[in-house]
Amino acid sequence: MIAALNGTLLLIVAAMMLLSASVALLYGEAAGPLCLSSGFTAVVGLFLRLAQKGAKSDEVRRRDGFLIVASGWIFMSLFGCLPYLFSGAIPDFVDAWFETMSGFTTTGATILTDIEALPYNLLFWRSMTHWIGGMGIIVLTIAILPLLGVGGMQLFVAEAPGVTPDKLHPRITGTAKRLWLIYFSLTVAESLLLRLAGMGWFDSVNHAMATMATGGFSTKNASLAHFSTPAIHYVVMVFMFLAGINFTLLYFGFTGKLSRLFRNEEFKVYALNTLLFGLGVALILFVFNFYPWEEALRNGFFTVISITTTTGFVTEDYLQWPNFLVFVVFVLFFSGGSTGSTAGGIKIMRHIVLIKNSGTELRRQLHPNAILPVRFNGKAVPQNITNTISGFVLIWLIVFFIGSFVMSMQGLDFQSAVGSVTATLGNIGPGLGQVGPVENFAHIPVTGKFFLSLLMLMGRLELFTILVLFMPHFWRND
Amino acid sequence: MIAALNGTLLLIVAAMMLLSASVALLYGEAAGPLCLSSGFTAVVGLFLRLAQKGAKSDEVRRRDGFLIVASGWIFMSLFGCLPYLFSGAIPDFVDAWFETMSGFTTTGATILTDIEALPYNLLFWRSMTHWIGGMGIIVLTIAILPLLGVGGMQLFVAEAPGVTPDKLHPRITGTAKRLWLIYFSLTVAESLLLRLAGMGWFDSVNHAMATMATGGFSTKNASLAHFSTPAIHYVVMVFMFLAGINFTLLYFGFTGKLSRLFRNEEFKVYALNTLLFGLGVALILFVFNFYPWEEALRNGFFTVISITTTTGFVTEDYLQWPNFLVFVVFVLFFSGGSTGSTAGGIKIMRHIVLIKNSGTELRRQLHPNAILPVRFNGKAVPQNITNTISGFVLIWLIVFFIGSFVMSMQGLDFQSAVGSVTATLGNIGPGLGQVGPVENFAHIPVTGKFFLSLLMLMGRLELFTILVLFMPHFWRND
Repeated sequence: MIAALNGTLLLIVAAMMLLSASVALLYGEAAGPLCLSSGFTAVVGLFLRLAQKGAKSDEVRRRDGFLIVASGWIFMSLFGCLPYLFSGAIPDFVDAWFETMSGFTTTGATILTDIEALPYNLLFWRSMTHWIGGMGIIVLTIAILPLLGVGGMQLFVAEAPGVTPDKLHPRITGTAKRLWLIYFSLTVAESLLLRLAGMGWFDSVNHAMATMATGGFSTKNASLAHFSTPAIHYVVMVFMFLAGINFTLLYFGFTGKLSRLFRNEEFKVYALNTLLFGLGVALILFVFNFYPWEEALRNGFFTVISITTTTGFVTEDYLQWPNFLVFVVFVLFFSGGSTGSTAGGIKIMRHIVLIKNSGTELRRQLHPNAILPVRFNGKAVPQNITNTISGFVLIWLIVFFIGSFVMSMQGLDFQSAVGSVTATLGNIGPGLGQVGPVENFAHIPVTGKFFLSLLMLMGRLELFTILVLFMPHFWRND
Repeated sequence: MIAALNGTLLLIVAAMMLLSASVALLYGEAAGPLCLSSGFTAVVGLFLRLAQKGAKSDEVRRRDGFLIVASGWIFMSLFGCLPYLFSGAIPDFVDAWFETMSGFTTTGATILTDIEALPYNLLFWRSMTHWIGGMGIIVLTIAILPLLGVGGMQLFVAEAPGVTPDKLHPRITGTAKRLWLIYFSLTVAESLLLRLAGMGWFDSVNHAMATMATGGFSTKNASLAHFSTPAIHYVVMVFMFLAGINFTLLYFGFTGKLSRLFRNEEFKVYALNTLLFGLGVALILFVFNFYPWEEALRNGFFTVISITTTTGFVTEDYLQWPNFLVFVVFVLFFSGGSTGSTAGGIKIMRHIVLIKNSGTELRRQLHPNAILPVRFNGKAVPQNITNTISGFVLIWLIVFFIGSFVMSMQGLDFQSAVGSVTATLGNIGPGLGQVGPVENFAHIPVTGKFFLSLLMLMGRLELFTILVLFMPHFWRND
């Protein structure tokens, strides 16, 4: 059954490759590499589906859930490399793997030193990997992770319409379709608005796909800084913010139930957080005479939204800002967007629960016997979920520390090592130092690139999904 | 009653000042400043004791516990500054406050650019602040913090002989006296061994006091690197390691119950951690041709022990080591010694509980309904204590992030900001970058010095003790 599901995934990937191949025809480019990749992927996909037809079973065990999710992303990335390799645009396998993984995990870190040298069809495929990854994440966070109870995602279940742990199948497809419709509509809307703001059609569609997936791949070397029209930056900013909201809440918002959006605690903190950090950074940029007020507000908010939603688009090189602002940006690397959005990172919900828990513990110092439950969205959070969440965040930090050590062994300096790990584990894209917003990951040694692509996968799949695979217990029969 | 206890503390401080004054007489220096400070402190101490004689009460409420601890350290530091100010050795109040707080909190960060310019009596007083601070910490961790339940210290109570939450008073003084005897004996033993290894009497006593308090003030500008005799480094190394062990376990060890020491989980992890990190660092230093094997072992182990026990003595400038080793040292900044030792930091016990909890959460992914308690020293840790500990560590990290931001606003670069905060919050002493092992804190702006001394106090008193004082609720009558 795992093979069958992966087969379906590969067929989707193959279809999307064909779509990208049509872009080649549109611009009179050679469509060969993409068609070949598509055919190859489709054949393997069909084979996987057929091979398992006999052994059909509707019962998915927990263990299978983890395997499906992890293998799905790995299979997609393996075949997603093909267009780069076949066309010779990225001849090295590890580079192509890094770029594809960065696409499907909606990270947006790139090893390309000259993005604009790529033909249109490959640029489109590159943005497409983001967009497919984003679609995958929506299903994952709504249907699978809460069931598996990964890192406290149970808390989020309560919000998803019609999804309860016991009756998954009947309504999950309906929910997924509704949310995909929103995803698709927002992508179309952003494309149109970007076109109106003065961007070309091709760039509009590509940037819209990368925005909605909170990915961050741009078709330009200078990312969004390439476009000097402020309206473009504002459009991207608004849609990044939208993509960082729980899609279930967006669904409520679009169906007129705005109160459900504004009553949601995670949304409130997310919005307030964006507002306060955005204003703060803008104010400092203005006071320090970095920009006039409009540019200060625009670049301040753009950077804050781009980092918290883990998109990674760039309008200005934040490493040139005062030291303490770089530190603020670094702290935001640990934030992440809302659960149920396409954003990666630790995520707002977990921060809320843990900070509230710490506050409770502090109050408990004075009244050791008082019952002080942590509340999230008005409901008391069971202590075991708080525990799961703190376990999750601690593992995130351990991976962060070990990762930074590994990257510093690859020859990176302190800031770059730390920056490259948070940028990939948090699925952000650009980091600090040698992997900063105007740099790329081309110069990282091969082992480092491979390691960082593993971190992207771990970050994207909420850590536990990958880590359980390394437990000997996982592979034992019982 | 709080005033009375602070009065007693000040009388002890005054007595120790007189002892330091006798050093002045011994070396033919002016004893005036220390005698004056002692007199002043004694008068205020006596006044505080007498003022409260009427309102005597034996009942200590929780709130009073926090107030006694926090005000105790602040009072000691206020009066501990006097010798520096009266003698003119450190004319600036904030500098003197920083140095004294660094002493009493056993941090060992210094604002002195030329330590050797200080007269013997002030050097002795400086080491004495460490030693008094260490004595205070022993009482604090054994008698007061577990009762208040600060950051999961309840777990530690089980180990202290004769101290149970309900019958504190009768046996606590006996326990404290026994542990002080060990503290005193080890200080004497180290002084003798250092003298035997070739250090002068004065330096031996000073370094012994600084070691046993896991402080780190040296009488030399170059710290332990001043002494080229390997034997001196080995002696200090062994005693730093001892000072980082739970003193209750040391008591068992010295009374022949070695099995209790070796059965203790925190000790086992502490010893193993030291061994593995020490060997690892030594091996890398040797392989990278930094030193021949004996020096590699000595400097590797010395640095690892000095940082994990939060002592902060220096034999080599670790910032000159390869980048990734600097990162290892940085990670050790977050370790801390054992609970119930004089070491500061997050501490091994908390790491054990949280890492076990994370592992449990990971296993729970596969068996969501299994009952998998976290065990510490063979006993199941109640979930609310795990929660308290994760609350504690999260607050530590929040203070670390906010602190680093504040320090980067003071103009420090990324690495120095992060380094200065971990070095003071973890009560280590030397940090990274501009506050590295061969640097000092003299160049930090005044507000930064004041802020860092607050971090030292917060770190030393296990955060919660200081943070509750900032809760409006704390000051309300109920």
